[in-house]
Amino acid sequence: MPNTARWAATLTLTATAVCGPLMGSATAAPSLAPSGLYAPSALVLTTGHGQSAADATPERAVTLNCAPTASGTHPAAVDACAELRGIKGDLEGLTARNDVFCTRQYDPVVVTVAGVWQGKRVAYEHTFANECVKSSYGMTVFAF
Amino acid sequence: MPNTARWAATLTLTATAVCGPLMGSATAAPSLAPSGLYAPSALVLTTGHGQSAADATPERAVTLNCAPTASGTHPAAVDACAELRGIKGDLEGLTARNDVFCTRQYDPVVVTVAGVWQGKRVAYEHTFANECVKSSYGMTVFAF
Repeated sequence: MPNTARWAATLTLTATAVCGPLMGSATAAPSLAPSGLYAPSALVLTTGHGQSAADATPERAVTLNCAPTASGTHPAAVDACAELRGIKGDLEGLTARNDVFCTRQYDPVVVTVAGVWQGKRVAYEHTFANECVKSSYGMTVFAF
Repeated sequence: MPNTARWAATLTLTATAVCGPLMGSATAAPSLAPSGLYAPSALVLTTGHGQSAADATPERAVTLNCAPTASGTHPAAVDACAELRGIKGDLEGLTARNDVFCTRQYDPVVVTVAGVWQGKRVAYEHTFANECVKSSYGMTVFAF
């Protein structure tokens, strides 16, 4: 390979390797809106200690976009989008895993999810008895 | 410069040049939470035609993070964050610009902003008489 071609190939590979994780990528194609454009899927998720969102200061808040590609400050955007697609964006459909054992300590944690999923508004709020119970629901959506 | 050092320098420059625009950057430092961590600022903004969010399908939805750096699918994240800092995150404080002239046509557009601004919950909904009036408010926050 000539030297210039080898350099060009190296630079392309570098850009792909370094930027790939920053850009994220969807593992399945999101659905198209009737207009032919992607229906928006943009969410903001919060978590905080308290009995309801009204009295819980949001300690963490992340964004999650799932169309046309997965991105956002959610630490596992690609997996979280896949999980949301699996439950068709209905967060009430997230179930507790069987492999997690939690104490009965009552130290409530409230999770909110607001925004849009495939063109429909989302307004979810759920209070879990403690952090462990919260983490037992689903795999990655609430892992932020 | 030895050949290997030149290669390393080239790869670093390439990564910075290509990835910089993807990562975004804040023009002013966001405030620190009492804990010493950045208080989260993560929002999802929607717009759609209708009299209220309840009856307006969200046609566009974008995310916007402003701490510790500006990012999100908002097309002007850095400027939008700067504008929000200017009004201390209080969207009711956005005023109409004097240089925009709109018709009185009534074709209402509703904008919602939900999430967290510097650790405090945000739930904003405002209906504008038409798209032009909406765009006359502020500079970049609603430009998505």
